[in-house]
Amino acid sequence: MSQVIATYLLYDEADLEKKAEKIALGLTIGSWTELPFLEKEQLRKHKGTVVHVQPFEESERANQYFGKRLKRGMVKIAYPSANFSADLPAVLTTVFGKLSLDGAIKLIDLEFSDDLKKAFPGPRFGIKGIRAKLDVYGRPLLMSIFKGVIGRDLSYLSKQLRQQALGGVDLVKDDEILFENEQAPFEKRIAEGKKVLQHVYEETGHRTLYAVNLSGKTFELKEKAKRAAELGADLLLFNVFAYGLDVLQELREDEEISIPIMAHPAFSGALTPSEFYGVSHPLLLGKLVRMAGADFSLFPSPYGNVALAKEEANGIAYELTKEDVFLQTFPVPSAGIHPGLVPLLIRDFGIDIVINAGGGVHGHPEGAAGGGRAFSAAIAAVLAGKPLSEAAKENHSLQKAMALWGTQEVKV
Amino acid sequence: MSQVIATYLLYDEADLEKKAEKIALGLTIGSWTELPFLEKEQLRKHKGTVVHVQPFEESERANQYFGKRLKRGMVKIAYPSANFSADLPAVLTTVFGKLSLDGAIKLIDLEFSDDLKKAFPGPRFGIKGIRAKLDVYGRPLLMSIFKGVIGRDLSYLSKQLRQQALGGVDLVKDDEILFENEQAPFEKRIAEGKKVLQHVYEETGHRTLYAVNLSGKTFELKEKAKRAAELGADLLLFNVFAYGLDVLQELREDEEISIPIMAHPAFSGALTPSEFYGVSHPLLLGKLVRMAGADFSLFPSPYGNVALAKEEANGIAYELTKEDVFLQTFPVPSAGIHPGLVPLLIRDFGIDIVINAGGGVHGHPEGAAGGGRAFSAAIAAVLAGKPLSEAAKENHSLQKAMALWGTQEVKV
Repeated sequence: MSQVIATYLLYDEADLEKKAEKIALGLTIGSWTELPFLEKEQLRKHKGTVVHVQPFEESERANQYFGKRLKRGMVKIAYPSANFSADLPAVLTTVFGKLSLDGAIKLIDLEFSDDLKKAFPGPRFGIKGIRAKLDVYGRPLLMSIFKGVIGRDLSYLSKQLRQQALGGVDLVKDDEILFENEQAPFEKRIAEGKKVLQHVYEETGHRTLYAVNLSGKTFELKEKAKRAAELGADLLLFNVFAYGLDVLQELREDEEISIPIMAHPAFSGALTPSEFYGVSHPLLLGKLVRMAGADFSLFPSPYGNVALAKEEANGIAYELTKEDVFLQTFPVPSAGIHPGLVPLLIRDFGIDIVINAGGGVHGHPEGAAGGGRAFSAAIAAVLAGKPLSEAAKENHSLQKAMALWGTQEVKV
Repeated sequence: MSQVIATYLLYDEADLEKKAEKIALGLTIGSWTELPFLEKEQLRKHKGTVVHVQPFEESERANQYFGKRLKRGMVKIAYPSANFSADLPAVLTTVFGKLSLDGAIKLIDLEFSDDLKKAFPGPRFGIKGIRAKLDVYGRPLLMSIFKGVIGRDLSYLSKQLRQQALGGVDLVKDDEILFENEQAPFEKRIAEGKKVLQHVYEETGHRTLYAVNLSGKTFELKEKAKRAAELGADLLLFNVFAYGLDVLQELREDEEISIPIMAHPAFSGALTPSEFYGVSHPLLLGKLVRMAGADFSLFPSPYGNVALAKEEANGIAYELTKEDVFLQTFPVPSAGIHPGLVPLLIRDFGIDIVINAGGGVHGHPEGAAGGGRAFSAAIAAVLAGKPLSEAAKENHSLQKAMALWGTQEVKV
């Protein structure tokens, strides 16, 4: 059947079965039992259905917090696709529109039937396509982030880009809070970035790609992205949650844009962290970002100050890469990453990830280039099955990084 | 100074002053004290500033929930507008991008400096313009909602629209979960709706406006809205939070659209209800919806099953109507509204509101027309200072409504 099945985590005083029935009808045809036979025939294909109700044990913590005893459980409801157009705003409004306002309820997952999935593009390049672009296989990609560039001019950015590229990183991304500005405008950043990275390539033979921040008014984004593509931009960074998932999808679908898109999680923390409300991390930063077409999805790693619980971060990575009709999206567990965490990152997320660092690159005693070298050495060591402590003996940059930030050796 | 000042509610183990300083720098220029004098001069106008830190008493409830003692307080940080382009995605990414992912922090308010406000349109018509369109003054407007129309054809919708209009409502809105569909397509709903409402006007002399649900892919919305305007649509209903606030703004700004917009809160409950995370109700459903240009903002009333705390609902209404450079947006406290609540609604929100009912109109023993009559009588009674119980003696429809749903008499 053509449908989307929504999974909710519910806390409610009412009986969960009854609540689920009320949702399934209330968000579709409104009423059922009192309908005449002929109308039932006509409306049957529009009726929401309770697929499953899984009661959980009450949570003492939740009961204490709400000051009353609440039943708790997972509820699955199927919404026929006859009820909505095949776009994410319609799907989200159907499954979590009014319902998002209705007490302690969190949207955990959405399962789209195969025919519905066809309305969504998934990534244009995916993990394989990005690897082919970079000609890098069998190891995680390495990315660094511009740092402290607000208010700086193009020459400052160019120098910082060069230092990062010299360290051997595969990707450099704009700061997501760098918007259109006079000192370092979008188009000039693209042109200048290409020049800098071409120089580094000629000097070192190493290719680095630059993700430029696509920003501004929604209805101007496509033109701006096309212009970026014409100028030869490598990648677009996009603050999808400050716009809307459908905007990401339409950027991805435009054949004249056709460059990889990196989804940044800015503002997504307004939706995901609550135990009781909002949308689950794996659904929002994993499944939906992938369906809508991002080639990369950044999310908080489980290690830094700004951290996700490990099962949440793993859940995101799983949704980005699991077997599906869509290409795979690169998981980019971010924040608080330094070279000493590389063994942990690879153990927890595998090699099909982007290792992404800001402070862990720029804060290196030898500067950003040293940071990149330390990361590269750490990655090589882990893949060779060598402890970092040993690899550090042959690599000064890694040694210095470990002295500064420590290390967490784990068996990969 | 040209800036936006963000107010946050914070729960943190760290000292709040230090945390605030870290935010102010981290989300702007990155570092300060170690910068050379000349760079300080250059970057001063980009530096975030802590405006105020207001420690609150610890919350035992929060401490118990998190299982640790947390400092708690309100923090105000100013972000210079030199750092961002004057659009909501850039503002939200600056003030609550990465920060939204950083622990228990809720965005409570944004104060825009006067020059920045000029980048936002506010409503095109506002309360005054809508009243002029309807030629209704000195009383709340009355709106009803299509009910149970999923899977129904145009003739079913037409009959329901007629019944609602016959009851004397000023506005009828689409169900927000009614999307583009073959049985009752968008353009046909507009044309047919006009015909039905014109008939009722000729019969009764009462003018009702119809808000049609603008839905579909983001980049097609403008064309669709223009087409609606050409067809003479009265109003657009828009699920702004399933798209993005900037999309609302650009629909409002388009001179070829130029019809009133009604913002629906669908999906906003993914952002607002948590005590610890997300965005406050008054900011999201009040201030930002008004700045972006909605003429109406729907939000849960404090009375129904799907209810907001009264101070939250009042906070939204305050932001929609307070003295500002923008026109006023009609507050539409919704859900669970029946005629017996009219005294309470007017006491709590005044007369510059829309009284909006679904079940409270359609569930009336005399049908939707009776529901409308009951509401109209209740509104007239309250404005005349008459108790509903007395007015009901002269109005059968009101009497029946009160018998069914009860009443809450309050002194207005």
